[in-house]
Amino acid sequence: MLPDTQNKIDNRQITINKVGIKDIRHPIIYLDNNGKKQPSIGNWQMTVSLKPEVKGTHMSRFIEILNQENMEFSVASFENITKKVVTKLDATTAEIIVNFPLFVNKTAPSSGVKSLLDYDATLISKIKDGVITTTVKVVIAVTSLCPCSKSISKYGAHNQRSHITIAAVTSGNLSFEDLINIAEKEASCELYAILKREDEKIVTERAYDNPAFVEDLVRDMAIALNNNSNISSYVLESENFESIHNHSAYALIKG
Amino acid sequence: MLPDTQNKIDNRQITINKVGIKDIRHPIIYLDNNGKKQPSIGNWQMTVSLKPEVKGTHMSRFIEILNQENMEFSVASFENITKKVVTKLDATTAEIIVNFPLFVNKTAPSSGVKSLLDYDATLISKIKDGVITTTVKVVIAVTSLCPCSKSISKYGAHNQRSHITIAAVTSGNLSFEDLINIAEKEASCELYAILKREDEKIVTERAYDNPAFVEDLVRDMAIALNNNSNISSYVLESENFESIHNHSAYALIKG
Amino acid sequence: MLPDTQNKIDNRQITINKVGIKDIRHPIIYLDNNGKKQPSIGNWQMTVSLKPEVKGTHMSRFIEILNQENMEFSVASFENITKKVVTKLDATTAEIIVNFPLFVNKTAPSSGVKSLLDYDATLISKIKDGVITTTVKVVIAVTSLCPCSKSISKYGAHNQRSHITIAAVTSGNLSFEDLINIAEKEASCELYAILKREDEKIVTERAYDNPAFVEDLVRDMAIALNNNSNISSYVLESENFESIHNHSAYALIKG
Amino acid sequence: MLPDTQNKIDNRQITINKVGIKDIRHPIIYLDNNGKKQPSIGNWQMTVSLKPEVKGTHMSRFIEILNQENMEFSVASFENITKKVVTKLDATTAEIIVNFPLFVNKTAPSSGVKSLLDYDATLISKIKDGVITTTVKVVIAVTSLCPCSKSISKYGAHNQRSHITIAAVTSGNLSFEDLINIAEKEASCELYAILKREDEKIVTERAYDNPAFVEDLVRDMAIALNNNSNISSYVLESENFESIHNHSAYALIKG
Repeated sequence: MLPDTQNKIDNRQITINKVGIKDIRHPIIYLDNNGKKQPSIGNWQMTVSLKPEVKGTHMSRFIEILNQENMEFSVASFENITKKVVTKLDATTAEIIVNFPLFVNKTAPSSGVKSLLDYDATLISKIKDGVITTTVKVVIAVTSLCPCSKSISKYGAHNQRSHITIAAVTSGNLSFEDLINIAEKEASCELYAILKREDEKIVTERAYDNPAFVEDLVRDMAIALNNNSNISSYVLESENFESIHNHSAYALIKG
Repeated sequence: MLPDTQNKIDNRQITINKVGIKDIRHPIIYLDNNGKKQPSIGNWQMTVSLKPEVKGTHMSRFIEILNQENMEFSVASFENITKKVVTKLDATTAEIIVNFPLFVNKTAPSSGVKSLLDYDATLISKIKDGVITTTVKVVIAVTSLCPCSKSISKYGAHNQRSHITIAAVTSGNLSFEDLINIAEKEASCELYAILKREDEKIVTERAYDNPAFVEDLVRDMAIALNNNSNISSYVLESENFESIHNHSAYALIKG
Repeated sequence: MLPDTQNKIDNRQITINKVGIKDIRHPIIYLDNNGKKQPSIGNWQMTVSLKPEVKGTHMSRFIEILNQENMEFSVASFENITKKVVTKLDATTAEIIVNFPLFVNKTAPSSGVKSLLDYDATLISKIKDGVITTTVKVVIAVTSLCPCSKSISKYGAHNQRSHITIAAVTSGNLSFEDLINIAEKEASCELYAILKREDEKIVTERAYDNPAFVEDLVRDMAIALNNNSNISSYVLESENFESIHNHSAYALIKG
Repeated sequence: MLPDTQNKIDNRQITINKVGIKDIRHPIIYLDNNGKKQPSIGNWQMTVSLKPEVKGTHMSRFIEILNQENMEFSVASFENITKKVVTKLDATTAEIIVNFPLFVNKTAPSSGVKSLLDYDATLISKIKDGVITTTVKVVIAVTSLCPCSKSISKYGAHNQRSHITIAAVTSGNLSFEDLINIAEKEASCELYAILKREDEKIVTERAYDNPAFVEDLVRDMAIALNNNSNISSYVLESENFESIHNHSAYALIKG
């Protein structure tokens, strides 16, 4: 029989906080708010903690979980994968992270033309000594328009694409769409994949009517996040890829 | 006179934890342990916290600091930049992060041929209510060789490049070289840019003589970090880009 | 009525070789060799050429094509999208590129355990003055083991993950699987997501039995590509992420 | 004596177009137009072609060239490194590519404040059968403002950061600064690291006064490149990171 090096006793007396696999791609089926199935490609990180006396974890068991059945989940049911990891790897602490492209079918503001917009979505599920927490994280690309530039210039105002990143720990029901709505409502304007000329007129004027510094973006969104009873804590960031500089304006609020 | 939108009073009553600039490249001169100057290119993030009643920060002041004099610093003197930011932006909390390629002139183990090896180095300096902390972070590429593969196979053993990342909060004198030495000593083998055939023989055999699971790498390095009295806390990671898989083995210890 | 700036006549007399959209994500359904449907996420670049007298192209029409029906295609049928672009944008030259993660269900060599392995797949379809060409491109991650290290060392041999990139212009039927098979057959060993200990023994010994320099990898694969009558030309690359260095060994053959 | 596997005769009869090293970082000193020294960090690719009968190249010799003396060069003198490679590796064909951050000290348009702006610079030197060609390539970040958005909207116009990439084969004297000047002159506006309020007013209005589609950007720059007698051929690209979409507008001209 082949020797099993991983099962020996370890004498170094050091707990490992996380050990497992990282950067593995595997297909998923995401169930959205309305129960609609959205196939996507997940990039996974799957780890457990390791007690001081245990020499090693069983790396292949993580990947067996990915391959044994369809990786189909909603925000609410995602924790079931973490529970399986805890059982299968005989662990008390586990963290499963999946990052995937999420699409929302948006309607252009005047023409009504529909098109898919992509968001960078992440779910993080942790189990620690029986307590489960889920974090819903999403990067929402929006338009930001500079109030200073608008107020000092005879015409025009610099504007640019900005990335709003919200990572919210849920204490109830929370969807990616909830976070997307907060970011798109408080930005200077939201984005669309298809805009007809009549739509482009509307988004241009809307952005000019709603100027916001990076400080305003995170403060207005923080108020909306604070008012959401399904969020127990969050980290909120805005990175504005300034159109007049070659660097970003950046702000972060922990709430 | 042009209106100054940033100086108005803000009524939203929300503290911003970090606001400033991100992803700006600016040349640096790094002073190593021996006082030798090493020119490099820094990627900077510079932020302050913002009180609830203040509407906005002054973004251009961060960049004025970068441009007013040479950005020359050692690990010990890096905090002076953060002090300047605190003064110039009238802040009580600030965080300055610079990431840059660092080079060490290494000697091949048999031929003695010298060549530069690159490391991904980061300094993080925080001032919060007068208290200064400095974090020294570095990614060290090494060789890891799998003990399981070695023990079960008639010959050979899979090995690969691994990234050891150490972020250590210093409570005294700590250099990048200290952290690099810990990682290179505990890995299966260290890397070199130039290896003659006689050197390649040595590193091949050394890696085979020192197999280590990802769990072993972080545990052995954790012991060395625990024994360093200049480190008050650390996060230590190993990511092994497995040569038999298309994903990484990964481990993390917080000490 | 809103003015249509794009439809004016251009006086600069300059042909634009490619104009359109880049870096847009949109879901796809890939039909593999056996007609099996594989949902994935495509990153698209869609361009046409523009005659000297025409001021601008119609950017939104590209995205309308993506959104009007399911983006379902095989290697053979992919050119239909390019044909639609030519018609809808009234162009004589068009190029459509889609890049997406592709999965193959592989069987471990001893245990028979099945697991998905990911490949980075790209299809490029060009129409120029009525002539259609299709390029099938794929990045295949494999193991390479160094013959020099093996021959000069008492035991062991350095090995690492390598990326084989093949971009083949087809003159008939050619699938991603054909190219994947060539790369995996000629490499020191192929990769799997799940390997049991009995499998790990086999892949370790197989790699040691099949050492190959980066020069050998591309030459052996070039012979296989030269012998495939469905390939009219190709570019073949190998990048070996050396486990003893912090840089890559690299080779390229145009055939 | 250790066996030298690379020096054996190869029977496969396959020429390798490029073989060598890739993705190695090594410090450089760039000599600009005025002979001023600018230290930076280069990312290098160094390859030679290999005749059918030769089994392998000598990888370590490339890196010896990097380490034997300071890598100090201007655009004009860069070819000397390629000549050394040809001699030291006994090759007839070689290609050396170095990519590095380049800085220009720019003056804000009203306040006169000076600040460094970064550009992504690349030099490519090829020797083939005694003929030397040098390609000067640079990515210039600029502002683009949409003419359609301006003309159809009551106020404002969407604008964004764009990347202009010019790769020009020189037939005489050509500097990075020449290419940067062309891109910055023809864009809606150029970028600066520091802009005071009086400067921000100017760049906002300048961009609004100079709207340009992605088609206009490449055509106007192509005219300027066509008129430069030191350029024998070029590839010119513009990628506009649209502030109203989550994808880019893109155009390319080969001249």
